[in-house]
Amino acid sequence: MKSHTVHRTFETRERREFVRITEDVQEAVDESGVQEGMVLVSAMHITAGVWVNDDEPGILEDALEWLDKLAPPSWREPGTAVARELLPDGGDYRHHRGGEDNGDAHFKNLLVHHQVVLPITGGRLDLGPWQQVFYAEFDGQRRKRLIFKVIGE
Amino acid sequence: MKSHTVHRTFETRERREFVRITEDVQEAVDESGVQEGMVLVSAMHITAGVWVNDDEPGILEDALEWLDKLAPPSWREPGTAVARELLPDGGDYRHHRGGEDNGDAHFKNLLVHHQVVLPITGGRLDLGPWQQVFYAEFDGQRRKRLIFKVIGE
Amino acid sequence: MKSHTVHRTFETRERREFVRITEDVQEAVDESGVQEGMVLVSAMHITAGVWVNDDEPGILEDALEWLDKLAPPSWREPGTAVARELLPDGGDYRHHRGGEDNGDAHFKNLLVHHQVVLPITGGRLDLGPWQQVFYAEFDGQRRKRLIFKVIGE
Repeated sequence: MKSHTVHRTFETRERREFVRITEDVQEAVDESGVQEGMVLVSAMHITAGVWVNDDEPGILEDALEWLDKLAPPSWREPGTAVARELLPDGGDYRHHRGGEDNGDAHFKNLLVHHQVVLPITGGRLDLGPWQQVFYAEFDGQRRKRLIFKVIGE
Repeated sequence: MKSHTVHRTFETRERREFVRITEDVQEAVDESGVQEGMVLVSAMHITAGVWVNDDEPGILEDALEWLDKLAPPSWREPGTAVARELLPDGGDYRHHRGGEDNGDAHFKNLLVHHQVVLPITGGRLDLGPWQQVFYAEFDGQRRKRLIFKVIGE
Repeated sequence: MKSHTVHRTFETRERREFVRITEDVQEAVDESGVQEGMVLVSAMHITAGVWVNDDEPGILEDALEWLDKLAPPSWREPGTAVARELLPDGGDYRHHRGGEDNGDAHFKNLLVHHQVVLPITGGRLDLGPWQQVFYAEFDGQRRKRLIFKVIGE
């Protein structure tokens, strides 16, 4: 069995941002020499995720807006009545008692999930034609890490 | 290390549908000869998912109804005030500017997740007694693919 | 390739509860002797999940409250108008026709997801500094199982 590990650091310009990383993951697979196996792509943070979806700007913008409704930030006025009700009952996250303001990003991490496992066949990511891999940053503008772990042979 | 790959094509009769695939996954495990390892079960589309849950018709019907509230289609009137608010602010998905109508299916893919990894012990899927594997189609009635990738020994 | 399997049983005191299991997973990795690989941590039930997040009591309490809004129990009055609308249209889960009362726990399982795959580097879980692994029980107070499956070399 072969294995190969890559740690990558991201610092997004925006607080919330999708960053396409399909090519970075394929590069890690190439370096590994693995022809048949799997690669784990996992955020090393609790306020970020990994999403496999369409590299189409509309859906990515839709997704950030929608995630703000389901997992609303408390650092700005909720835009809808639903978002207001989905905030914690006391009006702010208990998590913020320690000085944080990113409770919503923890919930976005829960919804999106922090990791995916991708299949490798014949040395290539075995994805469908529209599947692209995105690092999903929900509390950025600082250095954060991602791990790619390739195993197989 | 052994590996085995199966690509399966599904074409559901309904636009949204859960299709039980536990036995198909076990068949791929049998073909692989793997006794100890893992199998990745992954939709190759951005409007479908894989869910491990109960093969009980009530909960599956509940799930499709509930997913339509959280990730509402815009091709029909939202059934509730919550669904209306969870639609994009402009009333329709930005993603639909290109002629698509399946923005909701992308969000259902996000919620359900497009893949699972299942344990193999003694050549069998090591699942709990009520765990069944479902292909979750959210934009069907056309040919779509799923991959099973077995690794282990 | 090495592999190692551990089945663990949990019986939580509360109906809903997060139980930190990072150390248990590391122990399984230690027992396996695997230096480079992955470990699958998977609930064997359809009303539980596994979440990697912060071991900070505020966010965990926030999460249980928020999950009750998105995936509302029907065994108590919904606390908000949103939760009321997110209940099934008939007022109760179809799943409960068979005598169950845990439909909400199935949906929490969907949102949180029932499994994660964690990277192992140099014999250690390769997690970020705030990442802790939690067993997420949504219908507890009875014996339920979790599997750790380590593979690598």
